[in-house]
Amino acid sequence: MTRHQLVEQIRLKQSYLCVGLDSDITKLPEHLRSHPDAVFEFNKAIIDATLDYCVGYKINTAFYESQGLKGWEALEKTVHYIPTSHFRIADAKRGDIGNTSSHYAKTFFEVMPFDAVTVAPYMGEDSIRPFLEYEHKWTIVLGLTSNVGSLDFQKLVLSGEQVKGEKMLFERVLEKTASWGTPDNLMFVVGATRADDLRYIRTIIPDHFLLVPGIGFQGGSLEEVSSYGLNKDCGLLVNASRAIIFAGNKENFAEEAAAIAAEYAAEMKQYL
Amino acid sequence: MTRHQLVEQIRLKQSYLCVGLDSDITKLPEHLRSHPDAVFEFNKAIIDATLDYCVGYKINTAFYESQGLKGWEALEKTVHYIPTSHFRIADAKRGDIGNTSSHYAKTFFEVMPFDAVTVAPYMGEDSIRPFLEYEHKWTIVLGLTSNVGSLDFQKLVLSGEQVKGEKMLFERVLEKTASWGTPDNLMFVVGATRADDLRYIRTIIPDHFLLVPGIGFQGGSLEEVSSYGLNKDCGLLVNASRAIIFAGNKENFAEEAAAIAAEYAAEMKQYL
Repeated sequence: MTRHQLVEQIRLKQSYLCVGLDSDITKLPEHLRSHPDAVFEFNKAIIDATLDYCVGYKINTAFYESQGLKGWEALEKTVHYIPTSHFRIADAKRGDIGNTSSHYAKTFFEVMPFDAVTVAPYMGEDSIRPFLEYEHKWTIVLGLTSNVGSLDFQKLVLSGEQVKGEKMLFERVLEKTASWGTPDNLMFVVGATRADDLRYIRTIIPDHFLLVPGIGFQGGSLEEVSSYGLNKDCGLLVNASRAIIFAGNKENFAEEAAAIAAEYAAEMKQYL
Repeated sequence: MTRHQLVEQIRLKQSYLCVGLDSDITKLPEHLRSHPDAVFEFNKAIIDATLDYCVGYKINTAFYESQGLKGWEALEKTVHYIPTSHFRIADAKRGDIGNTSSHYAKTFFEVMPFDAVTVAPYMGEDSIRPFLEYEHKWTIVLGLTSNVGSLDFQKLVLSGEQVKGEKMLFERVLEKTASWGTPDNLMFVVGATRADDLRYIRTIIPDHFLLVPGIGFQGGSLEEVSSYGLNKDCGLLVNASRAIIFAGNKENFAEEAAAIAAEYAAEMKQYL
């Protein structure tokens, strides 16, 4: 999906919501758990119900890998089920030396039809380049994450010649990584729980799309994220996972998920 | 596998070699490529042939994921095939917020019988803790990697109160992460191409085992790595992948792999 197509979808729907399919099998509605293809059945129902309120789906690979082969199969079936009108993110946090990263890129961009994959920056340029080589595909690099552990390294202060003045590690990651791609093939993860940092982050990368997790269960505020993060092309994909997909746990779970997704979308419409 | 058991295996074999199963299907010997289970057949032959010269196998998940479902199946079959006398590493470079990392830990430690998994540190403590919670399992955290991109962020200079004086990012990662585990459940990746840094790294973490990739194809020197890295319990697992598994590409590929593994092991015996 190109940036133009993504922006068009956002304008059309008046929503920048991304639904996170963190489909932990132990948390599925009880009536589904004994289904031979429980995770995919659950995802199908969630996708059908929320399609109109979101512009993308983020599949968290961990919840599929932990189900072994069966899980990997559900992952493949799910990404094929999502309509191509929606932005399909593999939240996989991959990254390795060049020849290895090429294989991860192949996994998510060729073997499976994802539009984007999340990548960890610690190993630097050659670990990220192989993902950027795919046309109309997106690399989403961890900038400032939503968890408590983000303070351990991401906010450490750098000095010395290389950074010219004082900078925090995540700033350097944003700046440096931005120079390897363009706002047309590169996004950054910025946690909603760090909304106060978003205003500053927008001075470093005004044009890039940001994937913002941490709304809902993790406590981030959609209003704050939107007021600091929106740019002229919207520039935000705000993700909610558990708050939407596990909104209900009865037979009507998909309707309950849709109701929450609709609420987020209605709020987003105000901010756009 | 406990540290005691690992050290015993190293003493018994007089080797600290780890064979990397980066079994890229496009690089397998031609006669195997049309086999319906090519990757697993290749791995089986490599494992059978090299077993006596190494103490561990490192499976690089990227090369399996890029083969889709079939690849994930080969990954599972391979780890089950490796004898429990050998240290089984999932080189997966995972890491995410706590509830997600728990699922990755489950994948490699429960669903599959790996002894260790490699983890990226960028997301901090709560991304690493879930792996450390498993008894007799190991978390191998990226310290200073073997690739060119390691210079982009890992060697940036930190300052400020948090680090007390000047430090490079990778030093802080080693120090801080070491405080979350013990030398009995935590190792670090230090690339062989950074042998000159190993002496210094040993002043920060004298007791931990280091997983050292970059020998062979990437150009690291086994002699230098050993002279700077060995400690009283050996403390090294030196990995070679392509240099061993793709040593030959004819019918006798496994013998050729064994010959190279035997050479490394013979050299290691001198250093121990």
